[in-house]
Amino acid sequence: MRALHGVFPYLVSPVDAEGRVLRPVLARLVDHLIAEGVHGLTPLGSTGEFAYLTVAQKLAVVETVVEAAAGRVPVIAGVAATTTAEAVSLAREVMRRGADGVMATLEAYFPVPDDGIAAYFTAIAEAVDGPVVLYTNPNFQRADLSLPLIRRLSHVPNIRYIKDASTNTGRLLSILTETEGRMQVFAASSHIPACVMLIGGVGWMAGPACLVPRRSVTLYERARAGDWAGAMAVQRDLWAVNQAFARYQLAACVKAGLALQGFAVGDPIPPQAPLDEVAQADLRAILKAAGALPAA
Amino acid sequence: MRALHGVFPYLVSPVDAEGRVLRPVLARLVDHLIAEGVHGLTPLGSTGEFAYLTVAQKLAVVETVVEAAAGRVPVIAGVAATTTAEAVSLAREVMRRGADGVMATLEAYFPVPDDGIAAYFTAIAEAVDGPVVLYTNPNFQRADLSLPLIRRLSHVPNIRYIKDASTNTGRLLSILTETEGRMQVFAASSHIPACVMLIGGVGWMAGPACLVPRRSVTLYERARAGDWAGAMAVQRDLWAVNQAFARYQLAACVKAGLALQGFAVGDPIPPQAPLDEVAQADLRAILKAAGALPAA
Amino acid sequence: MRALHGVFPYLVSPVDAEGRVLRPVLARLVDHLIAEGVHGLTPLGSTGEFAYLTVAQKLAVVETVVEAAAGRVPVIAGVAATTTAEAVSLAREVMRRGADGVMATLEAYFPVPDDGIAAYFTAIAEAVDGPVVLYTNPNFQRADLSLPLIRRLSHVPNIRYIKDASTNTGRLLSILTETEGRMQVFAASSHIPACVMLIGGVGWMAGPACLVPRRSVTLYERARAGDWAGAMAVQRDLWAVNQAFARYQLAACVKAGLALQGFAVGDPIPPQAPLDEVAQADLRAILKAAGALPAA
Amino acid sequence: MRALHGVFPYLVSPVDAEGRVLRPVLARLVDHLIAEGVHGLTPLGSTGEFAYLTVAQKLAVVETVVEAAAGRVPVIAGVAATTTAEAVSLAREVMRRGADGVMATLEAYFPVPDDGIAAYFTAIAEAVDGPVVLYTNPNFQRADLSLPLIRRLSHVPNIRYIKDASTNTGRLLSILTETEGRMQVFAASSHIPACVMLIGGVGWMAGPACLVPRRSVTLYERARAGDWAGAMAVQRDLWAVNQAFARYQLAACVKAGLALQGFAVGDPIPPQAPLDEVAQADLRAILKAAGALPAA
Repeated sequence: MRALHGVFPYLVSPVDAEGRVLRPVLARLVDHLIAEGVHGLTPLGSTGEFAYLTVAQKLAVVETVVEAAAGRVPVIAGVAATTTAEAVSLAREVMRRGADGVMATLEAYFPVPDDGIAAYFTAIAEAVDGPVVLYTNPNFQRADLSLPLIRRLSHVPNIRYIKDASTNTGRLLSILTETEGRMQVFAASSHIPACVMLIGGVGWMAGPACLVPRRSVTLYERARAGDWAGAMAVQRDLWAVNQAFARYQLAACVKAGLALQGFAVGDPIPPQAPLDEVAQADLRAILKAAGALPAA
Repeated sequence: MRALHGVFPYLVSPVDAEGRVLRPVLARLVDHLIAEGVHGLTPLGSTGEFAYLTVAQKLAVVETVVEAAAGRVPVIAGVAATTTAEAVSLAREVMRRGADGVMATLEAYFPVPDDGIAAYFTAIAEAVDGPVVLYTNPNFQRADLSLPLIRRLSHVPNIRYIKDASTNTGRLLSILTETEGRMQVFAASSHIPACVMLIGGVGWMAGPACLVPRRSVTLYERARAGDWAGAMAVQRDLWAVNQAFARYQLAACVKAGLALQGFAVGDPIPPQAPLDEVAQADLRAILKAAGALPAA
Repeated sequence: MRALHGVFPYLVSPVDAEGRVLRPVLARLVDHLIAEGVHGLTPLGSTGEFAYLTVAQKLAVVETVVEAAAGRVPVIAGVAATTTAEAVSLAREVMRRGADGVMATLEAYFPVPDDGIAAYFTAIAEAVDGPVVLYTNPNFQRADLSLPLIRRLSHVPNIRYIKDASTNTGRLLSILTETEGRMQVFAASSHIPACVMLIGGVGWMAGPACLVPRRSVTLYERARAGDWAGAMAVQRDLWAVNQAFARYQLAACVKAGLALQGFAVGDPIPPQAPLDEVAQADLRAILKAAGALPAA
Repeated sequence: MRALHGVFPYLVSPVDAEGRVLRPVLARLVDHLIAEGVHGLTPLGSTGEFAYLTVAQKLAVVETVVEAAAGRVPVIAGVAATTTAEAVSLAREVMRRGADGVMATLEAYFPVPDDGIAAYFTAIAEAVDGPVVLYTNPNFQRADLSLPLIRRLSHVPNIRYIKDASTNTGRLLSILTETEGRMQVFAASSHIPACVMLIGGVGWMAGPACLVPRRSVTLYERARAGDWAGAMAVQRDLWAVNQAFARYQLAACVKAGLALQGFAVGDPIPPQAPLDEVAQADLRAILKAAGALPAA
C-alpha cells in the first residue's frame, strides 16, 4: 500500500439534465489535472456532489476517473451512506472498478453513538483492500468525529488518513498528536494548506485544486522542501480561491470555475442553483488574479 | 380530494439483517392501528427511517401498507430526497402503488436558496394527484422552511398541509395566520397535540401514535368536540410518551415499544443502535402508565 | 406569601442620553397598566434592558415602579448577574426598595456546571423574603436550565415559579409534570399564552402586555374561566403583537410601541438601535389591528 | 505609538471571597512574566474574568498591573461592556491609570446591527490615546465581527490590531488580506501560534502564556527569525497547554496552573467552579511535560 501525499483535487460530477454522467469532459479534466502535476484524484467528495447522486451515477463517475487516470496517480473514491450495509456495498463496488482506496463519510439523520460510528467505519475498512481516509465535516454532518473516536479508529490497520473539513486548524494538530503517527492528515478547502503542511500534514484534498492545480502543486513542493516563505507567497494568492469556495456553494463554485476554464461540466444538480452573474464575475476576477484564467 | 384530519401514526419500517422488509408484521400493525381508530397512516416518515432505506425498501413498505389498509383510511407516504429528480420519481412510484398523497421533505447537504426549495416542492406537487403535506424539521434538516416560503407554497393548489417538527408551537399559529386558510397544520411529536388543536390544527402525524393509538384518538375527539378539560386529562398521560421520543432516538424508541406490545419489528437499521436496557425499562414504565401495556 | 398569577407586563426602562432614568413617564406607565387591569408588574426583565443598565439605574427603576404601584399589584423585579455575589447584593437592594419578589436570571460568559447554577439561584432565594421566579432563555443565555436542575431547585421553598422564554411549549408541560405542583409556570412572549394556560400555566410575564394590557387581561380571564373559544378569539389578534416582538428586537419594539401610544420612553440604550421607519409602520399597523391604537 | 508585537499573556484577576483584588500576588506574577521575557501584558481578557468583575475590581487590577510593570512592557487593558457609554467610561479610566492601550470587546445581549457595532468601537477608539485591539469571539459572544465590518473599522486610525478567538485560522488570513496592512493580527489560545506567525500575525494574546512564558517567547523568536522547524519543535509541546485551556474552562485552568507554580491566585469567581482533582492532575502532567513545572 503506497503512502498517499500531495494535492488531490476533489473532482466534479458532471451530470446532464437527464441524469447522464458526462464522461468525456470528466476524462478530459482528469487528463488535464494529471498533466498539471497533481498527486492523486478524489471523485465523489462533497464538492463532487456525492449527496446528490444515485448509486449508478456514482459508479459511472468512478469508472470514468479510473479509466482516464490509467494508473498514473491513485484514485481515492468517496463512499458515503447512512447505513453500514450501503456503505460497505458501495465501497466494494468502487474498489471493483479500480479505485485505489476510499474516503469514507458517515451521513447521519439521527445521531449515532460512538460505537455505531466505529462499527460503520471499521466495516468499510474491512471491505476494502487499500487505504481508507476518514472524512469529517461538522458543517454538513451532525457532528465532528470526536478525538477519542479518531484515536480508536487509528488502530484499524488500513484507516491511515483523515481529512477534516472543519475550520479548526488546531484540531488537526491535536489529531496528529493523539494518533502518534498512525494517522496522517489531509487539509480541506477550509484550512490554509501551508499551515497544515507546517504542522505535519501530508497534503490536501479539496475542490480549489481543480481550478488551480499547477500552483497548488508548487505550494505543496515548496512546503515539502521547507521553503515556507516561498510557500506563503503562493498561498496568499491561492487563499482567495478557497475564500470563494467558502462564500459560495462548493459545487456551484467549482463547476462555474471549470466552465470558465473551458470544461463544460454543467450546473450543480437541482434544486441546487448555479452561481448568479455577480458571483461568476467575482470568481472570474479571483481566478485571473490567481493565474488560473488568462489575464486579458 | 377528501380533507385529511385526525391521528396519523408514523409507521415503522421493519427490515431484517439482510435488508428485507418484514411485510407480515407491518401489515398486522396496520390492521391493529385501523382497528384502534386512527384516521390515516404515514409510512416513510422520519420515525419510519426514510433516511436509512433504499428505494426498493421504501416501495415495499408503501405497497405493504396500502394493501393492508385496503382503502379504509388514507395512506400518506413520505417522499424525501436531495434532488428534484429523485423526489419526483419517488412521488410517482408511491402514488402508482396506491398512496393517497405524499408528505414531502427536502433533504439538504448544501444550503439551497428559497427559489430552489420552492421549485423542489412544486415539482413534487405537480407529479402527484393528491394532497401534499410539507414537512419541515429544523433539527434534522439544515433549516426551517421560512414563513414567506410557506406562504408562497400555500398557493400551489394541492399543497394543502404542513407538518412542522420544530418545538416552536408559536410558529404553527403564525403559519395558520400567514396562509389564511389555504394550508392546514398537523402537529409532530415535539408539539403538545392538545395545544395544536386549540390553535386550529387538524391533527397530528407522529410516532407516539403507533404506541398509544386508541388514547390518541380519544384525545383528538375530545379536542375536536371542544372538551378541552377532557382532552388535557388524556394529554397529560400521553405527553410522557412524547417525552420518551425526545429523550431517546425516534426510530429506536418506537421499534422498542412495538416489540413490547408484541410486534416483532426488529431493531433500527445499523449503525443506529437499539435502546439499551435502562432506556427499555424506562419506556416500559411509561407505556404502562399510559395504558399502552398491561399494568401487571 | 400570596400566589402570583395573571398578566405581568415586562416594563421598559426609560433612560435619557445622559443615563438618567425618566421617572415620570415610567410612573405614568405603571398607573396606566394598573388601570387597565394587569395583575402585577415586572421591571428589569430582558425587555426592560437589564443587560444594559448600571446598578444605580436598576435601583432607580425599581424605586419608581414600587412607588407608583403603591401596593396595588405585586412588583417582581429582575435580578441578573454573572456572579453570585452581585446577584445576592442586587436581590437585597430591590427587596429593600419594596419589591414583592424577584425574577432571577443567571448571566453566563463561561459555561457553569449544574452545581454552580443551583448554588447561584439558592443563594438568591435565601437572600429574599418573597417568591422567586426562575428565568431561563436559551436564546440569550448560554443554555436552558435542564429539567433535572429545575426539579432540584423546585425544592427550595420560595422558588415557586419559572418563566421559560424558549419557544418550546412542550418543555413547559414537562416542567409542570416534573415539579409535581411545587413550581408554577409563566409564559413568555415566545409562547402562545392561551396554550400555556391550557396546559396549566398561571399567566405570563412579557413585553407585549405593555402595549395591549386590557386585551391581555381579557384573554387571561377567558382562559381562566375555561372559555377556550373566547380566549382563542382574542389570542389570534394578539399573536401578531408577539410576532412583532420576535421579528424586531424586544426593547426597540416595546419602546417604539409605547411612544406611539403617547409614552415618551425614548430609544433603546446604544449601541442598540431604535426601530427603523419600515418597522415602525409595521408595528403601528399591528397595534391598530389589535385595538391598541386608534384605528383612524 | 509604538507597534505591539510578541507574547502578551492574558493575566488572571485574583479576587478573594470578599471580592478584594489580591494585589501582591498579581504584582509578583507581572514581575515574573516580564523576567521571563514576555513582550506585553493583557489584564481583563476573557481568561481574566472581565465578565465577572465590578468596575472597581477592574480598575484595581489595571492599577496593580501598570504599577508592577513600571513601563517595562506595554499594558493593554480589556474594555468590555454592553453599552457604548459604559465602554467609553471604562476605556478612559484604564488609560488614566496608565494603560498603554485597550483591547475592546462588545458584550451583547440582544443582537446589534453593524452600524451600532461600528459606532461602539469607534467611540472607544476616540476616547483612547493609544492603540485599540478589537476582540472577537464567536463562542462567548453572539457573533463574529463580520469581515466587511472589520475592514470598515480598520480605517479608524488607532484601531490597529485584532485578536480573533474563533478556531478558524483561515479567517485570520482573510482579515489580513482584507485590511491591506492597516490591521495586524494577534492569535488567541484557540489558534496554533506558529501557524498564525507563518501567515503574517504579529504575536498572541492568550492565557497559556501565563503558564509557559519563556517557552512561548522562544517559539515567538524562532518564528520571527524564520526558523519554522525550530518553532514547530516548541509548538508541539506547548499545544498540549492550549488544548487543556480548550478542554477545561479558561479561568479555572489558568488559576489552577498558576497555583501549581506557586502563585496563590485563588479560584475563579463563583458560581464558576475550580478544576476538580482529575482535571488538576491532568493539568499538572501537561505542565510538567511542557517544562512548566519541575519534572520530579
